[in-house]
Amino acid sequence: MPNPTVAVLGLGAMGLPMATRLHESLPVRAYDIAAERRALAAQAGVAVAESPAEAVRDAELVLLVVRDSAQLADLLFGEAGIASALAPGATVILGSTVGKEGIGPVARGLAELGVALVDAPLSGGPARAGRGDLLIVVGGEPDARRRAAPVLESLASTLTVVGDAPGDGQAFKTVNQLLCGVHIAAAAEALALADALGLDPARTLDALTAGAANSFMLGDRGTRMLQAYDDEGPEVLSRLDIFVKDMGIVTAAAREAHVATPVAAAAQQLYLLGEARGQGGEDDSTVLRVISPEPRQRVRKR
Amino acid sequence: MPNPTVAVLGLGAMGLPMATRLHESLPVRAYDIAAERRALAAQAGVAVAESPAEAVRDAELVLLVVRDSAQLADLLFGEAGIASALAPGATVILGSTVGKEGIGPVARGLAELGVALVDAPLSGGPARAGRGDLLIVVGGEPDARRRAAPVLESLASTLTVVGDAPGDGQAFKTVNQLLCGVHIAAAAEALALADALGLDPARTLDALTAGAANSFMLGDRGTRMLQAYDDEGPEVLSRLDIFVKDMGIVTAAAREAHVATPVAAAAQQLYLLGEARGQGGEDDSTVLRVISPEPRQRVRKR
Repeated sequence: MPNPTVAVLGLGAMGLPMATRLHESLPVRAYDIAAERRALAAQAGVAVAESPAEAVRDAELVLLVVRDSAQLADLLFGEAGIASALAPGATVILGSTVGKEGIGPVARGLAELGVALVDAPLSGGPARAGRGDLLIVVGGEPDARRRAAPVLESLASTLTVVGDAPGDGQAFKTVNQLLCGVHIAAAAEALALADALGLDPARTLDALTAGAANSFMLGDRGTRMLQAYDDEGPEVLSRLDIFVKDMGIVTAAAREAHVATPVAAAAQQLYLLGEARGQGGEDDSTVLRVISPEPRQRVRKR
Repeated sequence: MPNPTVAVLGLGAMGLPMATRLHESLPVRAYDIAAERRALAAQAGVAVAESPAEAVRDAELVLLVVRDSAQLADLLFGEAGIASALAPGATVILGSTVGKEGIGPVARGLAELGVALVDAPLSGGPARAGRGDLLIVVGGEPDARRRAAPVLESLASTLTVVGDAPGDGQAFKTVNQLLCGVHIAAAAEALALADALGLDPARTLDALTAGAANSFMLGDRGTRMLQAYDDEGPEVLSRLDIFVKDMGIVTAAAREAHVATPVAAAAQQLYLLGEARGQGGEDDSTVLRVISPEPRQRVRKR
C-alpha cells in the first residue's frame, strides 16, 4: 500500500511542527488561514495549498489542528466549509482538545459523506511535536484508527487507544486535564503554604515528592515553581492559558454531565486569575504567583 | 548507653500498636484515660501505669499520641497536666498531627522545665505502626532528635528530618496533607466524570496513571475507588474522617498565614460532605460516592 497523502489544516504553534514532522515520511499538503504561517511551512519544505479545499482534495488523511469546537464546526460545515471537498473514504483526524460535546454532530455529519472521524487529542508542546514525541489518546472505530496509524505513529511516542467511538479521546483528555490542572494548582498552594510556614521550599519539595503527596505535576512543575520569582522566570514549556482553555472544557463537560467538580472549579479560578494578571503566555508553573505574588522568606531575609 | 525508658501516653488506634512495637526493644510504660485501652496494652505485655504522671516519672522519652492541639495542651499544662512530673532532661516526642500553631507555646513551656520537644507527626495507619513501618517527619533540635532516635527508628521505615525547630514537622505534614487530600478528591472527581462521559473507569485509571495525570493517590486510592460501589466497599485502610481533621488543619493554617488555598478548601468540603453522609469511618476512597452516589454506567446497564 502506497503512503497516504496527508492534508494538514492549521499551522499554529502545534500544527506547523506536526506538518514538518509528517513531511519527513509522508506526502503532505498544508494550509493555514494566515499567509505568514503558510510561508513558514513552505520554508520548511512542506507543500502549501492555496485553499483548505485544495489541501484536502484526494487526501486520504486529513489532520485538523484547530483551536476549539466552534472553529472545527466552521472549518468543516461553515459557509466555506471543506466537508464537500473531502474524498469519500477519507479519514479525518482531530488533533485538538475541543471537548467531547461537539464531536457527535461532527462525526455524524462526516459519516453521511462516507468520511470517518478519529478523535486524537494530543499533548506535549511544539518541540516534542517536531520530533514525533507527542502523547496522543485515540477514540475511533478500529478500521478508521488503522487507516490513521501512519499519521498517529509518526507524531506520537505514546499512543493510547481509549475507546472505539470518536469522542472517547476527547472524554479521556478532559478527565486527564482535570487531574493535571488540579495537580499543578495544588502544587502551587502547597509550595506557597510551605513558604509561609517557614519551610525551605526546595527541601520541602524533595521530601514531598518522595512520599504519598507526590504527583507527576508536583515533580515537574514544582521544580519550575522554584524559579517562579526569578527575574527571567521559568522557561515557557506549557503556557498558562492552555489550562484556562482546558479547565473551561473540564467544567463545561462536568456541568453538561451533571457532575459536581468543586476541586477542578477552584483550580480553574486560579488559572483565570493568572490570565487576568497577564500571565497567560507564561509557563503554567507561574500560577504560584497568583497565590503568592512574592515569596515571604526571601522578602523577610532582605 | 542503656536503653531509655519510654512513656507512651495515648493508646488509641495508633498509640496501642506503637506502644506494643516499642515494647519489643525498649522498656515502655503506657497510659490511656480509657481503662479498656489500658487493659488491651496489658494483654499485649506492655507495662501499664496508674496515671499519666506515674507513666512519665523518670522516663527519658515521652511519646504523646493525642487527638489534637487542645488535648496536647491539656495533657501537659491542664489541671491534671503532667508537665511538672516530667524528668528534667526528658524529651517529649509528639507523634500526632495537630498543626503548627499550638506547637510554639508547648515547646516554650517545656523548655522552661528543661524538657525538649521533638515534633514527629506520623502516617501509615495501625497495621504499619505495629510493624515499625510508619512514615515520620521530624522537626526538632539536633540533640533532641538524637535522643529521640531509639523511638523514632523503631517506629519508622521512613524518617525525614524537615527542620531544626519543633513545629517544622507539623508544618511539613500540613503541606503534605494538603496535597494528599486534594489528590484523593481530584481522583474522585476524575473517575466520576469518566463514568459520566461513558469511559470505562478501570481502563481510564490505567491510562491516567501512565501519564502526566498520575499521582501516588490516584494509583493507590483510585484502585480502591473502583470498589466504592461494591456491597462491602473497599477495606478501610485510611478513614475518611482523618481528612476531615487534616484538611481542617490545612485550611486553618492557611487562613492563619493569610495564604489563599481555594483548591484545598474545595477538597475539604467533599470530606465534610462524606462525613455528613455517614462515611466518616469508611475508607477515604469512598469520597467518590459523595460526587456520584451511584455509578452511571452500571445503572444504565442493568
